[in-house]
Amino acid sequence: MNTKQVKAYGTEAAENALEQMNIKRREATPSDVEIDILYCGVCHSDLHFARNDWGFSVYPVVPGHEIVGKVARVGEGVSKFKPGDIVAVGCLVDSCRTCDNCKKDLEQYCGEWVGTYGGHDKHLDLPTFGGYSETITVDQDFVLTVPDNLDLAGVAPVLCAGITTWSPLRHWNVDPDSKVAVVGLGGLGHMAIKLAHALGAETTLFSRSPNKIDDAKKLGADAVIISTDEAQMEAAQNKFDLIIDTVPYEHDLNPYISTLNTDGTLVLVGYLGPLDPIVHSVPMIMGRRSVAGSLIGGIAETQELLDFCGKHNITSDIEVIDIQYINEAYERMLKSDVHYRFVIDMRSLKG
Amino acid sequence: MNTKQVKAYGTEAAENALEQMNIKRREATPSDVEIDILYCGVCHSDLHFARNDWGFSVYPVVPGHEIVGKVARVGEGVSKFKPGDIVAVGCLVDSCRTCDNCKKDLEQYCGEWVGTYGGHDKHLDLPTFGGYSETITVDQDFVLTVPDNLDLAGVAPVLCAGITTWSPLRHWNVDPDSKVAVVGLGGLGHMAIKLAHALGAETTLFSRSPNKIDDAKKLGADAVIISTDEAQMEAAQNKFDLIIDTVPYEHDLNPYISTLNTDGTLVLVGYLGPLDPIVHSVPMIMGRRSVAGSLIGGIAETQELLDFCGKHNITSDIEVIDIQYINEAYERMLKSDVHYRFVIDMRSLKG
Repeated sequence: MNTKQVKAYGTEAAENALEQMNIKRREATPSDVEIDILYCGVCHSDLHFARNDWGFSVYPVVPGHEIVGKVARVGEGVSKFKPGDIVAVGCLVDSCRTCDNCKKDLEQYCGEWVGTYGGHDKHLDLPTFGGYSETITVDQDFVLTVPDNLDLAGVAPVLCAGITTWSPLRHWNVDPDSKVAVVGLGGLGHMAIKLAHALGAETTLFSRSPNKIDDAKKLGADAVIISTDEAQMEAAQNKFDLIIDTVPYEHDLNPYISTLNTDGTLVLVGYLGPLDPIVHSVPMIMGRRSVAGSLIGGIAETQELLDFCGKHNITSDIEVIDIQYINEAYERMLKSDVHYRFVIDMRSLKG
Repeated sequence: MNTKQVKAYGTEAAENALEQMNIKRREATPSDVEIDILYCGVCHSDLHFARNDWGFSVYPVVPGHEIVGKVARVGEGVSKFKPGDIVAVGCLVDSCRTCDNCKKDLEQYCGEWVGTYGGHDKHLDLPTFGGYSETITVDQDFVLTVPDNLDLAGVAPVLCAGITTWSPLRHWNVDPDSKVAVVGLGGLGHMAIKLAHALGAETTLFSRSPNKIDDAKKLGADAVIISTDEAQMEAAQNKFDLIIDTVPYEHDLNPYISTLNTDGTLVLVGYLGPLDPIVHSVPMIMGRRSVAGSLIGGIAETQELLDFCGKHNITSDIEVIDIQYINEAYERMLKSDVHYRFVIDMRSLKG
């Protein structure tokens, strides 16, 4: 296996800041696409994984799974891409391809899927390294096509924040007859509002803060419910078909559950932390309500989303940063001080 | 409104035993059916309501919502039934008939449904009184037809224990390709096994007790998993499409959730008591798994179930008792000492 050395930003230990390092990338196998990375979004998971918050990080860690780049080279068996194509890579770079989930285009639920970082690169017998780097080499079946009308920096968060909210919108059949609510207005929440609105649904944001009302409406929300206002919550009982809960820490689900209509579902897409939600059973039974989880999306569904974004001219609202700013960006992300996603201009790594 | 006095068994207060009393029944309005009650099943809810365990009982309480009887008289506008017909009444005797849920034959989720007992009889401005009585008068739209091949005492529990498990089996599209598990082998659980098996599903019982294996298999279970056996639980990971959890007290749902396949659902149908389940979010997210609730069933769906039971010759496994035994039966029910449902022979009330 031929390899080359490329520059990246990563960490050798949970307690360290991210810093520049060199990593090995494989050269293209017959089915591989070598990509020069242009932009990489900054996801909350990047921070959790760099700091081993979940306890299963393998070092060195090079985060980044919201990748947009340009094809540099392709393996001899690659038919889907050619040098110069603008492409994207999300959270997955491989899966078993034979299980029931893979056969149903649900690679994200395959027991053997390979994460874009922190997975195992079977070719190199190394951890996979993410998009905070100059290049990445990915099997063509896990590379996506980017519509040519979109701002490329703004596309990057579509690969995780976008698909994480798109997949439940599609799975639970959201359409113009649907009433959708979103809990939390961060990276995921702002994409959920844009996408639900673009699907024609009546779209509502639940927020604790009246400061969010103007922003939410600009993003496409028809209404904002202040979740600390009992009268507003009471008025929303039995209303929603689908609630996408993006809040990434422990919180009480029950006030939201009772705003679900009969057969409504609250979908958890944010990581809730070490403490898990207590769910009251009676309101679930009395309205055949559900609480569910949903994880990113499959490759075909991610391409569907990119095509939808191209058609509706949807990208993420972002703040573009240089890679050298990443540790400060993490601290700001922890304080929710970003509207709504940091995206790294990877040219800054070459400088 | 003409009324008549009939004998019943009920209680004037939470702390009292049930005893014989007289209650008022209305004579048939033009749309009513007057029914001489033959059998009435004994549901756990009867006991909870008689003892005000849920805090909203209105006295006097006459329990009973698993009613089989013979039509005595019909109002002049009744077209669906005639004297002599064998009929049934379940948990509902009225609803608003105009809301979205009623229009979709989901009367059980109507905000104004009238319970067979403990509801409000708008004709008499009295609480509704249940089936522990000689007769009941019910609007024809809430009266069901009993197939003529079935044992009538064994039919009674179909009206609550049966429909409570049938409705989720149907809503979540159980068919011969499905893998269904049932948690708990009581009144609801034994019906869930019979019905899932009759629908052709591969049917498994989760039980803490190896003593249940033989019984479960006689009822139609293909397998029994001892839930305290870690190796058996480990072997069942990612297996089931639907789990019907009938256990009527607080318990840990998480070991069952991880036995759901991708897109699987665990449905709560038992009352879980004042403490509510803690649900771990990560396994739900990692497999798009759901936890849901489900409440009895609508009138059309209950008729569908009765017809299905007729076709497949399914009734409940019961112990027939006289009404005078009801207080002892309640004590035995609290100890799960019944296989699997008490049914009162209401002739005992005339004696």
